[in-house]
Amino acid sequence: MPQTPLLDKVTSPADLKRMSDRELRQLADELRAETIAVVSETGGHLGAGLGVVELTVALHAVFDTPRDRLIWDVSHQSYPHKILTGRRDRMRTLRQKDGLSGFTKRSESPYDPFGAAHSSTSISAALGFTMARELGGAPDPALGDAIAVIGDGAISAGMAYEALNNAGHLGRRMFVILNDNEMSIAPPTGAMSSYLSRLYADKPVQDIKHAVKNAFSLLPGPFQEGARRAKDLLKHVTVGGTLFEELGFNYLGPIDGHDLDQLLWVLRTLRDRADEPMLIHVLTKKGKGYAPAEGAADRGHARAKFDMVSGKQHKAPSNAPSYTKVFAEALITEARHDDKIVAVTAAMPDGTGLDLFARQFPNRMFDVAIAEQHGVTFCAGLAAGGMKPFCAMYSTFLQRGYDQVVHDVAIQRLPVRFAIDRAGLVGADGATHAGSFDVAFLANLPGMVVMAAADEAELVHMVATAAAHDDGPIAFRFPRGEGTGVEMPERGQVLEIGKGRMIRKGARVAILSFGTRLAEVLLACESLAARGITPTVADARFAKPLDRDLILQLAAEHEALITIEEGAIGGFGSHVAQLLAEEGVFDTGLKYRSMVLPDTFIDQANPHDMYASAAMNAPDIEARILSVLGVAQLGKRA
Amino acid sequence: MPQTPLLDKVTSPADLKRMSDRELRQLADELRAETIAVVSETGGHLGAGLGVVELTVALHAVFDTPRDRLIWDVSHQSYPHKILTGRRDRMRTLRQKDGLSGFTKRSESPYDPFGAAHSSTSISAALGFTMARELGGAPDPALGDAIAVIGDGAISAGMAYEALNNAGHLGRRMFVILNDNEMSIAPPTGAMSSYLSRLYADKPVQDIKHAVKNAFSLLPGPFQEGARRAKDLLKHVTVGGTLFEELGFNYLGPIDGHDLDQLLWVLRTLRDRADEPMLIHVLTKKGKGYAPAEGAADRGHARAKFDMVSGKQHKAPSNAPSYTKVFAEALITEARHDDKIVAVTAAMPDGTGLDLFARQFPNRMFDVAIAEQHGVTFCAGLAAGGMKPFCAMYSTFLQRGYDQVVHDVAIQRLPVRFAIDRAGLVGADGATHAGSFDVAFLANLPGMVVMAAADEAELVHMVATAAAHDDGPIAFRFPRGEGTGVEMPERGQVLEIGKGRMIRKGARVAILSFGTRLAEVLLACESLAARGITPTVADARFAKPLDRDLILQLAAEHEALITIEEGAIGGFGSHVAQLLAEEGVFDTGLKYRSMVLPDTFIDQANPHDMYASAAMNAPDIEARILSVLGVAQLGKRA
Repeated sequence: MPQTPLLDKVTSPADLKRMSDRELRQLADELRAETIAVVSETGGHLGAGLGVVELTVALHAVFDTPRDRLIWDVSHQSYPHKILTGRRDRMRTLRQKDGLSGFTKRSESPYDPFGAAHSSTSISAALGFTMARELGGAPDPALGDAIAVIGDGAISAGMAYEALNNAGHLGRRMFVILNDNEMSIAPPTGAMSSYLSRLYADKPVQDIKHAVKNAFSLLPGPFQEGARRAKDLLKHVTVGGTLFEELGFNYLGPIDGHDLDQLLWVLRTLRDRADEPMLIHVLTKKGKGYAPAEGAADRGHARAKFDMVSGKQHKAPSNAPSYTKVFAEALITEARHDDKIVAVTAAMPDGTGLDLFARQFPNRMFDVAIAEQHGVTFCAGLAAGGMKPFCAMYSTFLQRGYDQVVHDVAIQRLPVRFAIDRAGLVGADGATHAGSFDVAFLANLPGMVVMAAADEAELVHMVATAAAHDDGPIAFRFPRGEGTGVEMPERGQVLEIGKGRMIRKGARVAILSFGTRLAEVLLACESLAARGITPTVADARFAKPLDRDLILQLAAEHEALITIEEGAIGGFGSHVAQLLAEEGVFDTGLKYRSMVLPDTFIDQANPHDMYASAAMNAPDIEARILSVLGVAQLGKRA
Repeated sequence: MPQTPLLDKVTSPADLKRMSDRELRQLADELRAETIAVVSETGGHLGAGLGVVELTVALHAVFDTPRDRLIWDVSHQSYPHKILTGRRDRMRTLRQKDGLSGFTKRSESPYDPFGAAHSSTSISAALGFTMARELGGAPDPALGDAIAVIGDGAISAGMAYEALNNAGHLGRRMFVILNDNEMSIAPPTGAMSSYLSRLYADKPVQDIKHAVKNAFSLLPGPFQEGARRAKDLLKHVTVGGTLFEELGFNYLGPIDGHDLDQLLWVLRTLRDRADEPMLIHVLTKKGKGYAPAEGAADRGHARAKFDMVSGKQHKAPSNAPSYTKVFAEALITEARHDDKIVAVTAAMPDGTGLDLFARQFPNRMFDVAIAEQHGVTFCAGLAAGGMKPFCAMYSTFLQRGYDQVVHDVAIQRLPVRFAIDRAGLVGADGATHAGSFDVAFLANLPGMVVMAAADEAELVHMVATAAAHDDGPIAFRFPRGEGTGVEMPERGQVLEIGKGRMIRKGARVAILSFGTRLAEVLLACESLAARGITPTVADARFAKPLDRDLILQLAAEHEALITIEEGAIGGFGSHVAQLLAEEGVFDTGLKYRSMVLPDTFIDQANPHDMYASAAMNAPDIEARILSVLGVAQLGKRA
């Protein structure tokens, strides 16, 4: 455990206000050490937090949180903030069941005025707080300033631009800190990124630091300068005529985000004098101060538990490949056979496996930056131009491009292939990253084909099926994590659209599974066998179009039919119910049940525990089968 | 009918290539006259088309459409384009059943390479075509240049910025024409709009025109100048250091969009010389050349049929107020009682009725520009700051802010009130504007309350209910058009959350309606009364939470239960089916049917005809009731 004498005395940010600047510098060092120690035990996002240690200390020392609303964009960089805001004693529960969230969360602390996890929301939220203050919104505590801290990757998203555009127009005092570390999850792409680099290319940080230091030396005391002098100094570090100024912000920067003196001086000056929207461009290093992170390609973005000295991660060896990797390799195989296949990611080349694809086909992979709206419509344009685009996004982020899926892809019936990773509950990232809604929001679009892989071999077939499907859009979903270890085909087979498969024939009750709950269903069946109950099990493969023959046959031959899917109501089970209703199957009785995610947002835990909370694991399936058959359950009291 | 001798000879854009510039000028005048004549007969979008008459002629004269992909953003300005591209003889069927769409549409013409209707998609699509060309995508016809024409309002949307950012980074030859008319539907707001104004404030159009004319006079012949000279001339009209150049585009402008000579010269020069992304800033006047449009506040944005000479519109007198107006007035009433109520629109103050609200409360209405993503999260921030925001959007545009509804509003359980206009099928705007999916994509979000108004008095109650509901988000939906003429309350009553209402008690079959189909249900019942069939009718009011007691009672007391809603599968009916399944109601038989929008995108017609296509009018409801009861239908053969 690191020695943290000053940090040990901090119970809330108010304690920082009593410290000298020298003490704050030491506090920052201790905070960095504590952050490394915490993440070495819990795993989680490391690099981003290390990059903002000085900024976190400076913001809490200068501003009056929680009265001033400090909003961390994405908020995976908020661990140091959590340590300073009364949550240090719970940091070792980070990202675990019943523990602290890996992101900011309103319900967790008054110092988290606006939760996040998806990127680029902070400026909109800050503007909301700002205008609420102007209009007399008066929650507890009263509204002070709003400060958004947003990364250079996140500012590439359209909604950040929309928010700047609106905030610049409204012209009220608020603060946007652009935390420029030239690195979102992957190195950011896009013209904006090049632009930010140009902004400081001509003005190396050392020079600015020097200039500011010089300015300090001219003053009678470091923070006693008059208004005119402060203005002159600010002019000195301001780069004029920036894009942000065109959008109505005052731009100040770039400044060195690891020079606490400089940060304190700039923030204090602006706190005392700003009367318009301010954008402060701060240069930081992701992973700063921890050599194993600074030296890593991803700057220590997300880490399993690790050894503090070596930085070596403790990762359990895995027996099966991840779904993500299986997808990437299957797509590479298909792309070798078809030069029209291209792949699009929105700033997630690693997370989607498209980094592997790009190594094979560097000209056929497009990283559009954090820009799901554009990414989807760009795919629609590629498809209209005769290409076969695979749009690889996490389920939760595809929500960002929903209108584009409807308006540009589905209505035009363009053959865009949606490869939807992180379907269902995802574990440590919690509710904000759950892929719960895609089946519902895709399957009701006319002409859309929607598949879910039951295992990693099925995923390979679905990639091949999507590659071959040229008559309109098609989507396939698969979960986070590792496959089941099934035997893998060399190349996927093209599945018949709208046809499921029988897994095992049984009697009385049929389970129709859509997705990877199939393994849990089979576990439940093993347990039931001892009681002489042998359910029929089928894998639907398609939520749309449904395998009508299979479903009606299952309904006809069993007294009960249960569907199960890793998604919320409105999806697969709802489509099955609609078919059964229209066919009059309910008229004379069918014990029909649909197992879907419950009507709550489920907090982080490991995926198994999350599915236990959702009552969708093998024991829950078994209980549901027994209940629907009217059989008493072992060990349950009446 | 206007005299149009030159236009009469045009059957395709190839004919324009044989015309002299003088003839093209005359053609533009004839095209303007024809556009006015067409819209006077059909109604539709007038101002936008009149603003781009010269641009349309110039683009088709200079570029090689359809090989070059010309993409009109939103595309309500595409009427002149349709007239020139082989559709003149069908222009009088515009926006009518089985007629031409009011927007571009891939299925309608090869000259419409990418359909639109929602804004800000064109740059993404153009980049898709551009990269498809680079990678050898080879549909028919082969891929030439991609040209996006986008308005100054549309460029305020985040996805346009995302696309510029990506296109600027990729650096390929493509063309973006910024059609700057200082007017989307309403005058645009936002810092970007001010910025565009500043771009030409220093350089009045007359001067540039003059400069270009002077440049012409220096040349041996107007189009024979050498490369160096052309470059010099372009420099002359280029404004350096623009925001667009920071994003990787070459900026050229502003140029006079009604000076055909200038347009032709600039476009020809760029066509021959550009090798990078080009942004051409063109100034136009919405409604140009038609005095009644130029003089109108909305510049003739959308018009009913009108008298060509006077511009006077032929509007049928209405007996009932529009739902939009009812919403606005109810919100004004509530806002008088509660100074925390604020309203947010995304560039639709007229369409949502918030222009009326803004007249009463100018400081409490925010037009965030075409920026639904930001708009929703801005509302979340306002709510977190203690305000009571009403987020007023069309159902179809709320799709743009879906992730923000999930991530910023629902997960944080913030009390944002979604006022969802244009729910269900909307008429002449067709499939792209249908509000089909909101019930499904909202009702499966934990903690969300979802209501639909059965008539305009119900809407008033729901506005009051939403204002009073402070425990999480709430949404209410209502259709386009006029109410049913019911008696109106002075102020709305706060409804009990999750409680429906019984409309009439009957026997054998119960109809549970969600939304304005209720009127059709009652019509069906009138007709059935003659046959001795008296259905029970209830208004669900809530899709979430469901009125469990009401639904179970209806199921218990009737042999059949039919739900009906103006939405796609996955919504209200699916939630009812899930309840019935979980309660075991299907186990012993219930004739359950769910009437939802069919699994097709329905083309434009009047709403009544569209609902006839959807089989959701009174005769369809009657037929469904008879069918489920096993009663033979009159006039139907077995």
